[in-house]
Amino acid sequence: MRHAYVHGYDGPESVRLQDQARTLEELLHADTRYPPGSSVLEAGCGVGAQTVALAANSPGARITAVDISFASLGQARSRVAAAGLVNVCFQQGDVFALPFADASFDHAFVCFVLEHLRQPEAALAELKRVLRPGGSITAIEGDHGSAYFHPDSEAARAAIGCLVDLQRAAGGDALIGRRLYPLLADAGFEGMLVSPRMVYVDASKPELVDGFIRKTFSAMVAGVRAPAVAAGITTAERFAAGVAALHRTAAPGGTFCYTFFKATGFKATGRNA
Amino acid sequence: MRHAYVHGYDGPESVRLQDQARTLEELLHADTRYPPGSSVLEAGCGVGAQTVALAANSPGARITAVDISFASLGQARSRVAAAGLVNVCFQQGDVFALPFADASFDHAFVCFVLEHLRQPEAALAELKRVLRPGGSITAIEGDHGSAYFHPDSEAARAAIGCLVDLQRAAGGDALIGRRLYPLLADAGFEGMLVSPRMVYVDASKPELVDGFIRKTFSAMVAGVRAPAVAAGITTAERFAAGVAALHRTAAPGGTFCYTFFKATGFKATGRNA
Repeated sequence: MRHAYVHGYDGPESVRLQDQARTLEELLHADTRYPPGSSVLEAGCGVGAQTVALAANSPGARITAVDISFASLGQARSRVAAAGLVNVCFQQGDVFALPFADASFDHAFVCFVLEHLRQPEAALAELKRVLRPGGSITAIEGDHGSAYFHPDSEAARAAIGCLVDLQRAAGGDALIGRRLYPLLADAGFEGMLVSPRMVYVDASKPELVDGFIRKTFSAMVAGVRAPAVAAGITTAERFAAGVAALHRTAAPGGTFCYTFFKATGFKATGRNA
Repeated sequence: MRHAYVHGYDGPESVRLQDQARTLEELLHADTRYPPGSSVLEAGCGVGAQTVALAANSPGARITAVDISFASLGQARSRVAAAGLVNVCFQQGDVFALPFADASFDHAFVCFVLEHLRQPEAALAELKRVLRPGGSITAIEGDHGSAYFHPDSEAARAAIGCLVDLQRAAGGDALIGRRLYPLLADAGFEGMLVSPRMVYVDASKPELVDGFIRKTFSAMVAGVRAPAVAAGITTAERFAAGVAALHRTAAPGGTFCYTFFKATGFKATGRNA
């Protein structure tokens, strides 16, 4: 089951994902550590932006990274090798029909994947299938409705809205972060804990002004200019005004807020499994 | 200089502020501790909802709580006395023209005040005047643009927008949280640190489902029904639909996010003071 991927697969997008990974790695991944000898499935590893952190933080775990795209897997493999990590193997596969037997893994990990799926519930059910009873799931997603900033700008909000609309048109949900708890609950996971990770940026944090406002968020929005204009949901001028307004929040006196959501849960043991 | 106060001064609002204070006290105030013997100005104490926590957390500090409303000061005095606290004195005064000499206080504290002011910059300048060089300021504000929830609802967003519009019409800014850093910077404070305090609520936190979604946020929005309808920015039916949608986020499967901002800064010492 293929699905549209709003961010595309081309070169500049890979660079953006690298920048984002560096800036956000500590915030999102530092508290995910898997025990030596445990088996971890990363579903939808893409170009490996999160895989490196995942593998580096749990050097004794055996990580199986799966993606539907052979091209992305190739990039992910190179990136993991370049980082000197040897605890990751890669396999092509569909998150809706994983090429693994039931109860194959101790842990499952998905990051920035569910937002792109038409049926995140089905993906979570499939991840639960390949987890052993008692195994954990960790899901990380953003929520573009969590973005607000100073100076506020209607044009900037409209440009972000284009990304939300395109993602919705492609079957995804760019506002999925706030839904992680009910999604995991509906999939039958237990013991959920959802931990919001807010990125707050002001002039006292120049590395985030550059790394997050400019290179991550504004770059991500700017990246959908062509499809947004082609879809007729904005004009080139209006979209450019929105991106310019986002960049103004990176000027002195500006502030920016965005929140990622990290959810963990467990597959039930016993007769509920 | 009097100013409109969008939440009003009547009884039910006092009860709401009490509920809010209990739920949020730990999140907002736990890390504010003033040294024994230090002098602290709380500007705009209102009915004392925050004063009790402030005084209880710094029992050795001498707190002077100021408000423009004699009626509010009376309620605040009763509340502080009922809590058995003896380190607070009350004085009527205007935050734009405080009845104190320059450099009278070691610390200044304002919570849910700046959002209501037409000129928060002038209030901050006045607070800086009565601070000694090296003294600290702590400002806490919400930001209604930080509210998002599941299920999402256009009607709920519109009802929140009524509160924002009314506050703006009254000269305030219900989106001020994101602006605390530049406001303090523009007022000449130094060494600012802004710490967002996000309230995230899902079904695993029943006390926040009730204490925050229902009794604090939804109640606050519901409280502006009459003025919003009177101002012609909504209809009774539309507003009721929005409030009902907010309450649906408190049902199983719902989630709710809101962020407060806590800012600290210092009045410069030396020739910059």
